Amino acid sequence: MTGSIHGVGVGPGDPELMTLKAQRVIGAADAVFYISADGKPSRALATARKALSPGVEEVPILMPMRADPAEGAAIYDSAAEEIAERARHGQAVAVLCEGDPLLYGSFLHLLERLRPDFEPEVVPGIPSFLAAAAAAATPLVRRTESVSLLPGTLPKAELAMRLAACDCAAILKTGKRLPDVRAALEETGMADDALVIEEATTPAERIRRLAELEDDHLPYFALILAWRAE
Amino acid sequence: MTGSIHGVGVGPGDPELMTLKAQRVIGAADAVFYISADGKPSRALATARKALSPGVEEVPILMPMRADPAEGAAIYDSAAEEIAERARHGQAVAVLCEGDPLLYGSFLHLLERLRPDFEPEVVPGIPSFLAAAAAAATPLVRRTESVSLLPGTLPKAELAMRLAACDCAAILKTGKRLPDVRAALEETGMADDALVIEEATTPAERIRRLAELEDDHLPYFALILAWRAE
Repeated sequence: MTGSIHGVGVGPGDPELMTLKAQRVIGAADAVFYISADGKPSRALATARKALSPGVEEVPILMPMRADPAEGAAIYDSAAEEIAERARHGQAVAVLCEGDPLLYGSFLHLLERLRPDFEPEVVPGIPSFLAAAAAAATPLVRRTESVSLLPGTLPKAELAMRLAACDCAAILKTGKRLPDVRAALEETGMADDALVIEEATTPAERIRRLAELEDDHLPYFALILAWRAE
Repeated sequence: MTGSIHGVGVGPGDPELMTLKAQRVIGAADAVFYISADGKPSRALATARKALSPGVEEVPILMPMRADPAEGAAIYDSAAEEIAERARHGQAVAVLCEGDPLLYGSFLHLLERLRPDFEPEVVPGIPSFLAAAAAAATPLVRRTESVSLLPGTLPKAELAMRLAACDCAAILKTGKRLPDVRAALEETGMADDALVIEEATTPAERIRRLAELEDDHLPYFALILAWRAE
């Protein structure tokens, strides 16, 4: 009697941007797991809310934001064990992931722990950079152009090197690193047309030009789209 | 009396990987437009089939595969004019796009023609690289890593330079350029673990290791996922 384990991308925040498959898999789950950072409400759970069946068990994975690596690893160990135990007892378990499960998500920590014994199914989700581009209705890349997803947490020189090797960049996780990210964009001639897009596809959506921004940091759910000048 | 224009991503091929929003927007459309290369059946239309309302008008944009730039531009001009005319008469028009509308799609040609006078809405879709990663249930990137989407049609040296500037690459449009793409991956130490994924999420899905492939070309709906060795 073996159940099933699914990593389900719920997309960028608008519940309507879940896939039909995500809706079905979440609706069929006996239990849904989700990360709860510092016990705060989960954005992934809120996005999936309407797709949950009555009676589904909602299981938070409580993760302190300042957990050290050993503490974090122990929390993932324990969550993976609980997911495995439920699957062994025949349950269908869905792990809810913001965006796509395989791009930067916490699900990766669970996947590496579960994959030796199970074959978790991954349901892809709309990633934030595509939601941001859609919100701005702006082309990303054409023909022989390339696009890179870059964490703003990279050292400035590394970021500039990677920016120089693409035609379009989506810069995630900028936060307090905005001054360095801005400098790297200026160095590579990509600052002028860059857009800062917050909370794409949600009621809090906001689109601004980087050039008009005087802030020295960006909120968590913001990303920068930038293009090489032609 | 103004209608509406929507560029709708239908995802990688599995109709269940359409978003709820794509399903709604397609179902509410008076007319759906789609590219028909050389008059062949459209994959986007086939994916969206079940979401169409009875009575919707299906309008192919007939595009010869070997159209020269002027011929192609004239075909997009004429299609954009027909879409605009329908919107002016109050119709809701959906343009069906494989994957996501803003990543490499033909929709970009229509968007640039329509945007001066209309505000087309873009509905994002699951791109093929996320479908491929999900099919292989393999992590793409973590923490400070970056991922790049690269066309295999880039010159070999350019491709190698761009591969050297990322931790994970999804290489699209490889086709007959496989020998050069393979050489660029070998040069950058990314060939050993690379996967070739065809038709992800469809019944024809196939996943192979690049190292085991003796072919000198890849089919159209194939992509390569490759990672920097750690």
